[in-house]
Amino acid sequence: MEWKETARWIKFEEKVEKGGERWSKPHVATLSLHSLFELRTCIEKGTIMLDMEASTLPQVVEMITDNQIEIGQLKAELKDKVMYTLLRKHRHQTKKSNLRSLADIGKTVSSANSPTTTHRNLTSSSLNDISDKPEKEQLRNKFMKKLPRDAEASNVLVGEVDFLDSPFVAFVRLQQAVMLGALTEVPVPTRFLFILLGPKGKAKSYHEIGRAIATLMSDEVFHDIAYKAKDREDLLAGIDEFLDEVIVLPPGEWDPAIRIEPPKSLPSSDKRKNMYAGGDSQMNGDMPHDGGHGGGGHAAGDELKKTGKFCGGLLLDIKRKAPFFVSDFTDVFHIQALSAILFIYLGTVTNAITFGGLLGDATENMQGVLESFLGTAITGGVFCLLSGQPLTILSSTGPVLVFERLLFNFSRDNAFDYLEFRLWIGLWSAFYCLVLVATDASYLVQYFTRFTEEGFSCLISFIFIYDAFKKMLKLSHHYPINAEFKTDYVTQYDCLCMAPAILENTTDIIGDPLEGTSVWYWNNTDLPLNATWSSLSKTECLKYNGELVGKACEFVPDISLMSFILFFGTYTCSMCLKKFKTSPFFPTTVRKLISDFAIILAIFIFCGVDMLIGVDTPKLIVPTEFKPTSPNRGWFVPPFGGNPWWVYLASALPALLVTILVFMDQQITAVIVNRKEHMLKKGAGYHLDLFWVAVLLIVCSFMGLPWYVAATVISIAHVDSLKMETETSAPGEQPKFLGVREQRVTGVVVFILTGLSVFMSPILKFIPMPVLYGVFLYMGVASLNGVQFMDRLKLLLMPAKHQPDLVYLRHVPLRKVHLFTFIQILCLALLWILKSTVAAIVFPVMILALVAVRKAMDYMFSQHELSFLDDVIPEKDKKKKEDEKKKKKKRGSIDSDAEDSDYPYSEKVPSIKIPMDMMEQEPFLGDKASDREKSPSFLDRHTSC
Amino acid sequence: MEWKETARWIKFEEKVEKGGERWSKPHVATLSLHSLFELRTCIEKGTIMLDMEASTLPQVVEMITDNQIEIGQLKAELKDKVMYTLLRKHRHQTKKSNLRSLADIGKTVSSANSPTTTHRNLTSSSLNDISDKPEKEQLRNKFMKKLPRDAEASNVLVGEVDFLDSPFVAFVRLQQAVMLGALTEVPVPTRFLFILLGPKGKAKSYHEIGRAIATLMSDEVFHDIAYKAKDREDLLAGIDEFLDEVIVLPPGEWDPAIRIEPPKSLPSSDKRKNMYAGGDSQMNGDMPHDGGHGGGGHAAGDELKKTGKFCGGLLLDIKRKAPFFVSDFTDVFHIQALSAILFIYLGTVTNAITFGGLLGDATENMQGVLESFLGTAITGGVFCLLSGQPLTILSSTGPVLVFERLLFNFSRDNAFDYLEFRLWIGLWSAFYCLVLVATDASYLVQYFTRFTEEGFSCLISFIFIYDAFKKMLKLSHHYPINAEFKTDYVTQYDCLCMAPAILENTTDIIGDPLEGTSVWYWNNTDLPLNATWSSLSKTECLKYNGELVGKACEFVPDISLMSFILFFGTYTCSMCLKKFKTSPFFPTTVRKLISDFAIILAIFIFCGVDMLIGVDTPKLIVPTEFKPTSPNRGWFVPPFGGNPWWVYLASALPALLVTILVFMDQQITAVIVNRKEHMLKKGAGYHLDLFWVAVLLIVCSFMGLPWYVAATVISIAHVDSLKMETETSAPGEQPKFLGVREQRVTGVVVFILTGLSVFMSPILKFIPMPVLYGVFLYMGVASLNGVQFMDRLKLLLMPAKHQPDLVYLRHVPLRKVHLFTFIQILCLALLWILKSTVAAIVFPVMILALVAVRKAMDYMFSQHELSFLDDVIPEKDKKKKEDEKKKKKKRGSIDSDAEDSDYPYSEKVPSIKIPMDMMEQEPFLGDKASDREKSPSFLDRHTSC
Repeated sequence: MEWKETARWIKFEEKVEKGGERWSKPHVATLSLHSLFELRTCIEKGTIMLDMEASTLPQVVEMITDNQIEIGQLKAELKDKVMYTLLRKHRHQTKKSNLRSLADIGKTVSSANSPTTTHRNLTSSSLNDISDKPEKEQLRNKFMKKLPRDAEASNVLVGEVDFLDSPFVAFVRLQQAVMLGALTEVPVPTRFLFILLGPKGKAKSYHEIGRAIATLMSDEVFHDIAYKAKDREDLLAGIDEFLDEVIVLPPGEWDPAIRIEPPKSLPSSDKRKNMYAGGDSQMNGDMPHDGGHGGGGHAAGDELKKTGKFCGGLLLDIKRKAPFFVSDFTDVFHIQALSAILFIYLGTVTNAITFGGLLGDATENMQGVLESFLGTAITGGVFCLLSGQPLTILSSTGPVLVFERLLFNFSRDNAFDYLEFRLWIGLWSAFYCLVLVATDASYLVQYFTRFTEEGFSCLISFIFIYDAFKKMLKLSHHYPINAEFKTDYVTQYDCLCMAPAILENTTDIIGDPLEGTSVWYWNNTDLPLNATWSSLSKTECLKYNGELVGKACEFVPDISLMSFILFFGTYTCSMCLKKFKTSPFFPTTVRKLISDFAIILAIFIFCGVDMLIGVDTPKLIVPTEFKPTSPNRGWFVPPFGGNPWWVYLASALPALLVTILVFMDQQITAVIVNRKEHMLKKGAGYHLDLFWVAVLLIVCSFMGLPWYVAATVISIAHVDSLKMETETSAPGEQPKFLGVREQRVTGVVVFILTGLSVFMSPILKFIPMPVLYGVFLYMGVASLNGVQFMDRLKLLLMPAKHQPDLVYLRHVPLRKVHLFTFIQILCLALLWILKSTVAAIVFPVMILALVAVRKAMDYMFSQHELSFLDDVIPEKDKKKKEDEKKKKKKRGSIDSDAEDSDYPYSEKVPSIKIPMDMMEQEPFLGDKASDREKSPSFLDRHTSC
Repeated sequence: MEWKETARWIKFEEKVEKGGERWSKPHVATLSLHSLFELRTCIEKGTIMLDMEASTLPQVVEMITDNQIEIGQLKAELKDKVMYTLLRKHRHQTKKSNLRSLADIGKTVSSANSPTTTHRNLTSSSLNDISDKPEKEQLRNKFMKKLPRDAEASNVLVGEVDFLDSPFVAFVRLQQAVMLGALTEVPVPTRFLFILLGPKGKAKSYHEIGRAIATLMSDEVFHDIAYKAKDREDLLAGIDEFLDEVIVLPPGEWDPAIRIEPPKSLPSSDKRKNMYAGGDSQMNGDMPHDGGHGGGGHAAGDELKKTGKFCGGLLLDIKRKAPFFVSDFTDVFHIQALSAILFIYLGTVTNAITFGGLLGDATENMQGVLESFLGTAITGGVFCLLSGQPLTILSSTGPVLVFERLLFNFSRDNAFDYLEFRLWIGLWSAFYCLVLVATDASYLVQYFTRFTEEGFSCLISFIFIYDAFKKMLKLSHHYPINAEFKTDYVTQYDCLCMAPAILENTTDIIGDPLEGTSVWYWNNTDLPLNATWSSLSKTECLKYNGELVGKACEFVPDISLMSFILFFGTYTCSMCLKKFKTSPFFPTTVRKLISDFAIILAIFIFCGVDMLIGVDTPKLIVPTEFKPTSPNRGWFVPPFGGNPWWVYLASALPALLVTILVFMDQQITAVIVNRKEHMLKKGAGYHLDLFWVAVLLIVCSFMGLPWYVAATVISIAHVDSLKMETETSAPGEQPKFLGVREQRVTGVVVFILTGLSVFMSPILKFIPMPVLYGVFLYMGVASLNGVQFMDRLKLLLMPAKHQPDLVYLRHVPLRKVHLFTFIQILCLALLWILKSTVAAIVFPVMILALVAVRKAMDYMFSQHELSFLDDVIPEKDKKKKEDEKKKKKKRGSIDSDAEDSDYPYSEKVPSIKIPMDMMEQEPFLGDKASDREKSPSFLDRHTSC
């Protein structure tokens, strides 16, 4: 005879699959009502010994049996038999044994655990056969990793024996948690013991009672009660409370054999406890930055408060960020940072190249690719090193590009010195920006609601997607496919370089005609020595005014198609690899690694494919020499001398436009990065950010480099690639999002690399452009993820019955939701048209118009509806809060599901303001501390022998 | 004041989302224990009136209040007020009203319903404000479609009023179900009424009680009891039974705010009922072909019984299939059939072309593409028209091809007349087959277990996948890409047709050199008139012994890459469109249509892409003229004269091999098609199938056409494309797989079309071959779906904790599962190697060896383990059966989840044999009838005013 482990509980139930010799997947423990009532009877009738002073299992068992004999529940002559039974050896799932002879007797050992502030788990063991020391297997057990360090165990021993007439029940709480040897699967001290031995014939029923008490002991509220209980009545009250809260599924609508997967989110035990403890709805300080409790999306703390003092906001920003400055460098050490650096680096370089190319085109190379690289490296590096929000990535943006193009054309038409004119505009803009900083104007950011933010970020994402496709189309126009080509007529396709036609008329030679002609022309057109017309390449031929003749001339084989394969391949591959994290294959660490490096892997794979096929696709071209693109300029723009004096003053006007542009681009991106749902712990610094943007504006203007502001898509990608999740949690618990690795190193390194890229062209030249366009597409699409506007767009295509259970759908009529979506589509369409025309320059002003549109919507929607459709609290948190409210309202009446949606508006809009002081008190270690607080894990076990 | 509908139940709960003005998604009704106990008290204390004779709501209300006054529960002076309240107008969710003034009073109307054999649902209404006639809105309500025709309603009216001191409770069952006007949402007669009016202040609690009774009334077991109840005690007993069966979720492990999605499968109410009714485990005849109750995978009925009589099996087959012959033509009318025809047609044509091409290559055009088309059309058509299992599709298969190749080479080497030799082998094989038919040898098929079947079908699928890629690779070798091509050097790439070099030495002309040379050669080498060497196409140039000179000659631009785009595009697109059925977008019908036509759509889309790009990809070539490919043969092979007489007898030996080949290919495919999980209702006909295959073997041999046997992959695709599912079911219920549209028309039409394809070349020539290869790949991958072997392969890569909850994993140790998988991989690898070498001809014999391997495994695995790993009952059904067994074992003790796996082997292996007679008694209408039987739907409603 031996005891066999049948299940364990750390929050969720895991059973031993006897046949499969394995642990089952963790699942929600479904109980029968019957067993709960039987358990209640057991506690009512059985021996309850609280705060027993014993340190070994024999002692415990002795004391229990003595007590039972004393009160007359057990005949004295059975004592030995009971003790013998209880001290049999325990077999755990980890021990592989091929002997299965005792499988017919059902016995259960289970264990629960854990008081309020510390959390224990449990394991098991009995003796006589059992030593007090933990066994080797126990110590080797890797399962220990899953348990918090101060976990305690509850052991549940259930079995049937033939010598008893009535059940032998005991519930024991030890004075001190002690290690009961091999009773537990892993060496964890035991605090609670539940023993049920009964007469033969009801093994199933006993087993269920064991599961019931184990489930109870793993319940946060009940084990709290069990720790504090003074007598039997307290325990019974605890069971009754549990029964009151229990959720009942009708048998006709649910198959009890289905193991219910653990839910994504659980009601916090605090909430449940508070229901009974009464009052004290304090948050316990464990989740100071929880997205669910913040204000309207972006921190409405004093980051955005108007101080009224000169530079008050800026000084506060510096004061707030300074204490984190050291940790901003120490927090970087994680493999994820490497992946983030590579990913963002490639994004930045691609951006620098494309925008550099476009700028060069727009300004006749007054600013070109090299200026773009240099500017990106300098501004980005300085910003990441010193700004208020180092997760923001600076980059050239579309509106700036449009402005430069218009400015250059204006300068040329009016014979202004472009760079000098630009310098003064830059200086004026920087001045305006500094005024905005000094007057704390960034507090206006608060008026950017979800509507404005999403409008802006969707637009930028769409531009990314559109640009990726546009570039691919352009590429395919550059390498046209010969659709007329027939394999059989390959002899008819060629492209020959011929001497210019006009000259041919003047010649009339006899002799080797081909050779002769070419020699003749060589003499006349400075063809290089030894070259003939036919030996010239396409470029050379055109250079020497040769004529290209033949059907093959205008076509380029393979390159376009290969580019499309690389483009879609890179995109699809990135998407799939990114999703690999949620696939069931390979261990978690491998999956996470693959997912983190998804984009890099995709780039590598498709660079490999490109090399394998060997087609001459367009490659990334990085400048190799360090000198201004245009020979007409140096690295410093002199401020005077180029233009008449009044231009210096007149520049103030266009500078206004630039200021709006910079402010909007910069601050909306900052707002998105600083969103509550990112759980940033080091706070934002809107004023400080803008200050540095202004300073860098001056630097760039003087050096003749492009202007830089925060780039939405790359910044979001940066934040996403640095997200942290809990690594260990109870089996079945969802990993929790812990926040972002906030530090300055990734950003700084990215920009140093960008600067060094000029010297890395031997490596970078292997990357085909279509692969980078694929990455662009990926970034555009990925940044649309989780945007409520996109969800609502999808709703337009879904029949009502398939729509997901979104919180706003429960409370806002569908037609209103659709109306809201339509307005947003309309705004975006207008903005899109605007940005495609010359009016693009007023683009930033039009973003401001979104705020006005949003304001106007107050007349079309009720505040109630807008509170659901337009704010920045993510779905999940809002539901949680709703539940919380419900719970509070319904204290005492257990109402699981009823509708209760018509509270007044004021209650619905989140308005809890978390003072910044509180955040500062909890430095970066906070996430680790709260980790333990938030994911209490419990371990119970079942063994049957 | 008015009554407001708040929820309705047809099996699952749907709530009215007040804010959202819509019905929520159907979900499992989660109740609180509290409300169930309160409900019990209500039934205990309240008025119970069973079999009330009333026909209008006022009558009902009058009788209830009178009764209450009589027994002293209601003061007489309140009668008017109560009646007034109960007869207020009812507002249903469908009526759009912008007035929300009465939202603060919570009242509930709900309705349940339905006795054992008929099923009712419910709707609602009250009067004074209410007419007895159904209102227009009611009649217009499309919701009615979801209800079975004989549905009855239960109305639950719950509310709080200020004039009552104690609750007013009544439960009424009407003698006759009557239409109570606008009480119900749709015009459905009401049978039950539950009324609860209580004093102010506990609206929530009343609401929950209302939900509890509504859930109870929608429970199959309880409403049965409610229909039959004689007094209050019966109802209370019903509630207690319900409570006993209830499933309890611990509050700490589940968030009550989560709406639980309806489960995929539900425990049958019969099982639950039987638990109480005792005995009578008869299946009620409603699911005679349920896959869960069949034998070991393929029908172990008398289809495969050894009759012992001459041709006994064949005669039985004919007798069994004959009654279905008419319905085999009438059952075809459904849009799905069209999609199936197109899909299978394209598969068949592609197959005919590829195998035709390969055969022509192997037999020096003695059998070519045209023979392949003709043979496919004739044999397929005849087989589908007359065989025992018309869902089977005949086609050329790999082993036959290998045999033909060897045979042709042998004949050529020994100077035999190939066609005549082949004719005699065919005749002998047909003879052997007929002997096998006459002796009922097909009963041996029973020894093909899941192991053999999956080995065979996986191998065929792998061959499909492998072939698709091989063909693509071959194609890319045929159209090589010029990896060296540089755009700039386009002038250096050309391909000129030059005069043969040897001749050039003999010429020495002066004058226009190019022109002259070509003219000269034209004279000497029969160049066509007006042609010059340079004007010749590649083929012509080679034909006239010209020489192709230039770097471009060996390369073909674009075609390879375009082909790969088309190939992967078609595959990905088919996969995505097929999965579209489970996406949440668009209404169900649209989704189903898209999913049904997935492959055709994908083909169309990529033909479009191909035409758009215009690259000259290889297209499908269909023969246009009707004559034998080889001019050396006719349409009839004379049996004598070509070979010496002893060859006629010697042919008997190779014929043995052909016989094994035909028998294995044919019967394994038949076994797979006839699997229980396909729920075929018209039975199989193994003997009849083989008979026709033999007859067609003779025909083909005489006509010199290829031999045909059942093709696994295409047959599975055929079955899959004809699967039927329930169309209407209660909201939230999963559509049920009803079976396959078993008919002969799709098959026959496919083969007629195949025959006509010879005349359809103008259309078919637009289909690029890579698109068809993509379809091949899709067919290969799709037929691997749901194969247990593939699931087990995936397990190899999954860490234990991520593995799905498969039934065999619960009962067989993982290492045993992996061992089984490894053996299977080994067998497949051996078979693969075998089929790639010359030994391929013994391939069918080796498949037989699989049976031996399986037999040998009896020594490595226990029967218990093999019963889980190697049989053909699909996962789901086995779990169901296990539950059933558990239930039966545990009658009375409600044990939801306990492990109970060690029953003896004999119990585990399914052995219930369903006699064929029973199947025949229920012709094709059975599926409709059982539809109603199997998906009982209930409708309850909640209204609050």
